[in-house]
Amino acid sequence: MTAFFEDVSIGDRLDLGSYTFSAAEIKRFARKFDPQAFHLSEEAAAKTHFKRLCASGWHTGAVYMKLFIARRQADERAATEAGQDVARQGPSPGFEDLKWLKPVYAGDTVAFSNVVTGKRALKSRPEWGLIFAENHGINQHGDTVFSFKSKVLVERRPASPGLRA
Amino acid sequence: MTAFFEDVSIGDRLDLGSYTFSAAEIKRFARKFDPQAFHLSEEAAAKTHFKRLCASGWHTGAVYMKLFIARRQADERAATEAGQDVARQGPSPGFEDLKWLKPVYAGDTVAFSNVVTGKRALKSRPEWGLIFAENHGINQHGDTVFSFKSKVLVERRPASPGLRA
Repeated sequence: MTAFFEDVSIGDRLDLGSYTFSAAEIKRFARKFDPQAFHLSEEAAAKTHFKRLCASGWHTGAVYMKLFIARRQADERAATEAGQDVARQGPSPGFEDLKWLKPVYAGDTVAFSNVVTGKRALKSRPEWGLIFAENHGINQHGDTVFSFKSKVLVERRPASPGLRA
Repeated sequence: MTAFFEDVSIGDRLDLGSYTFSAAEIKRFARKFDPQAFHLSEEAAAKTHFKRLCASGWHTGAVYMKLFIARRQADERAATEAGQDVARQGPSPGFEDLKWLKPVYAGDTVAFSNVVTGKRALKSRPEWGLIFAENHGINQHGDTVFSFKSKVLVERRPASPGLRA
């Protein structure tokens, strides 16, 4: 995740690692941001269509971000230690088609991944290119529980050292 | 937000209230889920393109959810106290076109709203209809900082008391 725009290929896949959603974390997030019965307690969840305690969809999204940033920071440290240039990434302008496909229940372990699906150079911002990706969260049963399409600005490789600021 | 599918009209607008993003809350969320420099400290943010401490995009989304749920729960309590039927809402299957349009800086107050843009009865699930809406977050300067398109399942009004379970 430290590659310059030119070095990113469609199909490139990043495994972002996995995360086990504990009941305590699910409840803590829910009390703060999404206090619905099926996120707050096992007893209340049992009376809903979910039947069991499950994570807020926004919690799943925030955990994706946690793993994405951890991976990027680890890659940046490794590249820096190896003396390699690290491409800057711009902020995400947003994403599309976010889907909460199945509940994430307490105790579930979700593995997140990011696969590059497209790239586009930007005439208006010649230092940057846009990378498109699909992101997935898959639980311990192999079921996809979460997906969305993201885009991010990635720095272009300078044409020659003379062009660097 | 307690209306049955039949009673929801395109153009219906809900003001979800506003929220002031404190520096302490921005940092707390960031340490847990999005530890990038511009979310973690004023000093580190000053060295980035954002220049100032600003909230994680997922934090903004989670706060939208907090206000949405608070509004729905308040409406449900009021309707129940008034002896009115309350339509059930199903879980959200996801959303589209999420945009973080401008940074949410520490101290900014963002007002969130939800406007109905479409509705569709479901042949496959005759008890439910799908409501489409556009959601916005607007800061104290009148700038839209956050938007997304949501959909939610809303219970249909039973045709007659005899049809109720």
